[in-house]
Amino acid sequence: MNPQDTINAIAKRRGYHWPSYEIYGGLSGYITYGDLGTKLKRNIEHLWRQHYTRHQNVLEIDAPIINPEIIFEKSGHIANFREHSTECTQCHHSFRADHLIEDKTDLENVEAMGGEAIKQLLKEHKIKCPRCGGQLKEPTQILTMFKTEIGATGGLTGYARPEAAQSMFINFKRGYQHAREKLPFALAQIGKVMRNEISPRRGLARVREFTIMELELFFDPQNPHCPHLPEVEDEKVSLLTEEMQEKEEKTPLETTIKEALEKNLILTPWQAYYIGLSKRFITRLGVPPERQRFRAHLPDERSHYSAQTYDHEVKLDSIGWLEVAGHAYRTDYDLKAHQKGAGVDMTVLREDGTRYTPHVIEPSFGLGRQFLVTLEASYEFKEKRNILHLPRDLAPYQLSVNPLVTKDGLPEKATEIYKTLQDAGFTAQYDQSGSIGRRYARSDEIGTPLAVTIDYDNTLANEVVTIRDRDSWTQVKTHLDNLEEMLTKYYSYELEFKDLGEPL
Amino acid sequence: MNPQDTINAIAKRRGYHWPSYEIYGGLSGYITYGDLGTKLKRNIEHLWRQHYTRHQNVLEIDAPIINPEIIFEKSGHIANFREHSTECTQCHHSFRADHLIEDKTDLENVEAMGGEAIKQLLKEHKIKCPRCGGQLKEPTQILTMFKTEIGATGGLTGYARPEAAQSMFINFKRGYQHAREKLPFALAQIGKVMRNEISPRRGLARVREFTIMELELFFDPQNPHCPHLPEVEDEKVSLLTEEMQEKEEKTPLETTIKEALEKNLILTPWQAYYIGLSKRFITRLGVPPERQRFRAHLPDERSHYSAQTYDHEVKLDSIGWLEVAGHAYRTDYDLKAHQKGAGVDMTVLREDGTRYTPHVIEPSFGLGRQFLVTLEASYEFKEKRNILHLPRDLAPYQLSVNPLVTKDGLPEKATEIYKTLQDAGFTAQYDQSGSIGRRYARSDEIGTPLAVTIDYDNTLANEVVTIRDRDSWTQVKTHLDNLEEMLTKYYSYELEFKDLGEPL
Repeated sequence: MNPQDTINAIAKRRGYHWPSYEIYGGLSGYITYGDLGTKLKRNIEHLWRQHYTRHQNVLEIDAPIINPEIIFEKSGHIANFREHSTECTQCHHSFRADHLIEDKTDLENVEAMGGEAIKQLLKEHKIKCPRCGGQLKEPTQILTMFKTEIGATGGLTGYARPEAAQSMFINFKRGYQHAREKLPFALAQIGKVMRNEISPRRGLARVREFTIMELELFFDPQNPHCPHLPEVEDEKVSLLTEEMQEKEEKTPLETTIKEALEKNLILTPWQAYYIGLSKRFITRLGVPPERQRFRAHLPDERSHYSAQTYDHEVKLDSIGWLEVAGHAYRTDYDLKAHQKGAGVDMTVLREDGTRYTPHVIEPSFGLGRQFLVTLEASYEFKEKRNILHLPRDLAPYQLSVNPLVTKDGLPEKATEIYKTLQDAGFTAQYDQSGSIGRRYARSDEIGTPLAVTIDYDNTLANEVVTIRDRDSWTQVKTHLDNLEEMLTKYYSYELEFKDLGEPL
Repeated sequence: MNPQDTINAIAKRRGYHWPSYEIYGGLSGYITYGDLGTKLKRNIEHLWRQHYTRHQNVLEIDAPIINPEIIFEKSGHIANFREHSTECTQCHHSFRADHLIEDKTDLENVEAMGGEAIKQLLKEHKIKCPRCGGQLKEPTQILTMFKTEIGATGGLTGYARPEAAQSMFINFKRGYQHAREKLPFALAQIGKVMRNEISPRRGLARVREFTIMELELFFDPQNPHCPHLPEVEDEKVSLLTEEMQEKEEKTPLETTIKEALEKNLILTPWQAYYIGLSKRFITRLGVPPERQRFRAHLPDERSHYSAQTYDHEVKLDSIGWLEVAGHAYRTDYDLKAHQKGAGVDMTVLREDGTRYTPHVIEPSFGLGRQFLVTLEASYEFKEKRNILHLPRDLAPYQLSVNPLVTKDGLPEKATEIYKTLQDAGFTAQYDQSGSIGRRYARSDEIGTPLAVTIDYDNTLANEVVTIRDRDSWTQVKTHLDNLEEMLTKYYSYELEFKDLGEPL
């Protein structure tokens, strides 16, 4: 089995995620997260906040999903948020034309080639309907936003946002006030977005509804200095620049954030800073550096608002290179668009009395994709067992608490320990069903880092528990008096497993 | 000024919340939360999770907002999720007929009276269009869900969910598997829902998009025992039962959860348990018990699925009694509806071999309303100052860190302390702008419980900081070596302010 299929099977059986609307036959493009999934998702969100919102000048907001049409008219989305669609003349199903070409050829990133090239390629490769073999119509560009009417009695057209960014731009002035009228500052948002995909596929990687984690950093283009750059300037990154891609070079350039900025491969310091953080964040999810690269968008591929975009890509065994984040230099495009659209001044004052429209750097993360790469990077099949080696602070449950057997007061003692640990803030699962070996296997399969076991000789006699490590399958013994403190230090990465007690 | 207006003004100026789409003239029914608001919201969510999801048999899920039409057809929403709308024959604006009647009369809860009564009341009170004075049409029942097409090329009608519950019901079988096929268990969800209100008003209290916190507890009707009931059975509650309302009694019955259950005023133990938790949760937000009551829905008012519903209501000075949570006994209505609709067996097996459809208890919370009552309950105007006495663990920022003046190394020392506290996990704001008095006032106005001040005599000379209390405006002195530990204990309610150090 493809690792992705195995992981999907575990995910469904254990409660990470599964296709939505199962009992009604399913509906492509929709995923439901279960108990383990919501916990992992929340832990990834928390980690993102620690990376991207820890500085005081980052203000988080939470804005509506449905926006009146005028927002997306003025932002350019109605004109540009479109995909190449082709319909079968026989079965009338619609498909993404660029994806059909990618399936039939060795070409990658066909979308970037533009509409004319896509038409030609469909003809050249004689591509037919993948469902019924029928003739396909000429591709057209279709708006892929969900449309609705606001107000139960109609009247005002609205769209579900396909990104969170516009709500940050239209609230720029309000944010500026809350940031005490000082630049640079950022608005950030974690929330749901919707994209009305033509023919979604690839499970979690392309869905119609997902959580986005997005930040818009506003700065003065005459003063692009980023004070936090030293935090990441030595971070190593693999770049595929525009120039390299135009020369068809396939091997990325290994460089540092500092060097990339000096050589102007990254246009501006805030962009460099957020790219460095991105590398650090994705690495913390468990993705090794050699599976990461930053690929620049070619001019034809870039969104209408962008002066430079780097996709942060991760190489998966299942589906190859996958975009997990986008880093766009949006310039003053959006603020100017809304200034014109709303007739509201979006400029700010410099100390010297001149006015300017701020420039914007946008790091943007689709949480479902971080979730996907976290799970796939963590997976190992060892001695006929599935193991998810999730980073210890991201695992849905930090520990399981297990009485060795269900008699002689062991369950009572274990329940007491379980409650104490839960009250202390640990996410724990109490488990007494099945043999201890089976429980360890279950715990490994859902990625729980530690299993605490309560037995006769150690616990009842000496107030000592055994702790088993998911990764090494070794055990240590720890006195209950120290347990809470040891675990706290373990989960904050101050201790390693072997430091938690005496080897068994 | 009405306290709500004052709070809204603070909220807008400081960044709790404000009307969305301001620069495009606004759009009623939409609210944007700012930095303070998202933090308060997240803290309330966390507190709700601590109350409602701490038991192991509660599985949280995260399902899509857009659902295909069939879900709401089978659930009964297409037929029943409707409001009484009336349109002006002159200006063509639409209004909620029941709200127009409430505005013109002393009547409350007109919706519960049903369509015929509403028609009569409109005529009887000669109600005209509140905008232009025009004649109103006969009211009709309008579906108040947002409609859209799924798939960019159309074809499948979808609706945004107006509650999260249906995704819990259609995933019942999957949840049952993850709960190891044991009842009782619950599915819970915190997520966005949308209601296409006819004429939204009252700011935060009635919006078109909000976060819901909802739980569906599945149990065997032959075994309705709730093992957690003793946790809350002595909790005091004020009830307005169906019978009392039919007799037009206005004074609620003061009773305990245990007694209400014994007297069958609450129909079943799980309902009683969740009502007890609800009392405790809303009290923790800062709402005094005397401003809370549980009002039973009258038979005509109850949703199509409910055998008994209690609204948890809070009395606000600004708008009177407001529903902050609903507690519905949904019986087996929904599982049976989807069993029929999808043709999928929703029954489970008892140990004795018989099969049954589980019954459901649903506590449901609209987060925006918890947010609103938290803010309003916290507000005080004292000596010409606005103060938000937010519970210390809910305040957006736990503390501010202030150098007394901006010279002689005080900012450097303060920054160092700020970073240490932030690294230790506290949400802190560094503030050096303006006089210390002005900074304290700002800190009070946004509800920050403690202000830590760095000065010459104490800090530079003796490694001691002063801590100022938002509520009493008194100060204590604490050595930096103890600061982190003292604050940790303060925020977990192990210490009170006066215990944090020596009085100044």
